[in-house]
Formats: sequence, C-alpha cells, structure tokens
Amino acid sequence: MSNFKKTNVGANVPRIELHDILNLTGAEVTVNNLPANGSVPFVHSHKKNEELYFVISGNGQLYIDGEILELHPKDCFVINPLGKRAIKAGDSGLSFICIQVKEGSLEGFTMNDGIINEEKAPWMK
Amino acid sequence: MSNFKKTNVGANVPRIELHDILNLTGAEVTVNNLPANGSVPFVHSHKKNEELYFVISGNGQLYIDGEILELHPKDCFVINPLGKRAIKAGDSGLSFICIQVKEGSLEGFTMNDGIINEEKAPWMK
Repeated sequence: MSNFKKTNVGANVPRIELHDILNLTGAEVTVNNLPANGSVPFVHSHKKNEELYFVISGNGQLYIDGEILELHPKDCFVINPLGKRAIKAGDSGLSFICIQVKEGSLEGFTMNDGIINEEKAPWMK
Repeated sequence: MSNFKKTNVGANVPRIELHDILNLTGAEVTVNNLPANGSVPFVHSHKKNEELYFVISGNGQLYIDGEILELHPKDCFVINPLGKRAIKAGDSGLSFICIQVKEGSLEGFTMNDGIINEEKAPWMK
C-alpha cells in the first residue's frame, strides 16, 4: 500500500475538507475561501480538539471569547477546545487553513519521532 | 487563562516551528521557505507521526519511496509514518506548511467534536 496520497485545492471553492480525501488519521484539515465580507454564521467551540488556523491571503476578523482581532496574511493562531470562535472576511475575502487535532495527542515530534534514512533522493547523489 | 495564542510568520525565514511558539499540544506545524533549488539534505521517515504538507507557493519536487512527484501551489499531500521522503525547491523556491500529528490520534472532528454556541459575534447581531 502506498505511503502517500495527494490532491490539489486550487479550485476556489468555499471549503475543502481533507480528512476523507486524503484518509487523514490524526487531523481534519480544511482549506477555506470566504468571499469579501462573508462569514461563518455561528460561534463554535470544541469538545476535545484544538484548532490551528493559518491565514493564506486576504483580510478579516476573528471573534474569540468576546474579543475581536484583525487577521492578516500569514497570521497563525491556535484556539483551545473551549475557546468560542467565529471568523469573518474583510473587503479582500479571506483564505485560510484550519487544522483540527485532539488536544494533548502529540507525543514526540521532529527529532523525537523522525528517523533519518540512509537512502538518497536523486539530488543528493 | 486565554484560550488563544497568535503569531505571524510573514518573515521569510527558512523555517518556523510553531509547536513551542503557540504551545501546540496535538501537532507540530512548521512553515518552510526553501530558496530556489534548495533542498532538505536527507531522506526521512517517522516512528508514529503522519505528515500533511500544503504547498503555499513556488514549485519543487517530492521524493517519496523512490518516486519523484512535481509540486505546485495548493498541492496537499499526506505521508504515512513509514514513507521515506525528501523535498527540493525548483527555480521559484518553495514555501510550504508541514503538519505533523500522531497517526490514528483523531477521535471525533467537525460535527462530532464541534459545539455551536448561543453567543453571537458582533456581525451576527
């Protein structure tokens, strides 16, 4: 079985959910494109999952626990499960990624979990 | 304690690791900017973690288990822990996000884990 699965999210659809497309087992990842001044129509929180958002392009606002923050390209923010959140695009629309993972689920990472292999890619030879 | 932490990765540094900056507990997320024709100098795999990559901009190549695939903006791909991988930028450089999570760690998500709250953001009133 292949260790690899790939797609492209270039189509400017409102929302693509990658969990089922890529058979993800540790995260749900969505790519979201809100039109100018568009918004998610409700405030939400989570039971067990923390969310990391990455702003690809555009501008907008984040509502979080009663506060409003302006969003700009390459902003990254994490929200703990209980945070009450909603997002609205500004005049430029807003494209962002949302990564949903179970809080506390990561054990090792990078140096602890990675293994450097002896095999070489063609450009290493 | 705040349910929220934010940073900006606009500075075009080679690599930013968000785990410690944002106190992530379910993922390590890195934002990577390889210069034109730059590459990660080794092939690696993982013990327990699957990785999801998202290409922000530029072009390049992925080496995966002996295969080479061309990379384009908005490509998303998942690699299971055992996949042997390396990435190289093309002539345009390559900016990408890498999301590292423990394989099999996600329990519920979206409709199963999300809670719609009664409170409203200002734009909902």
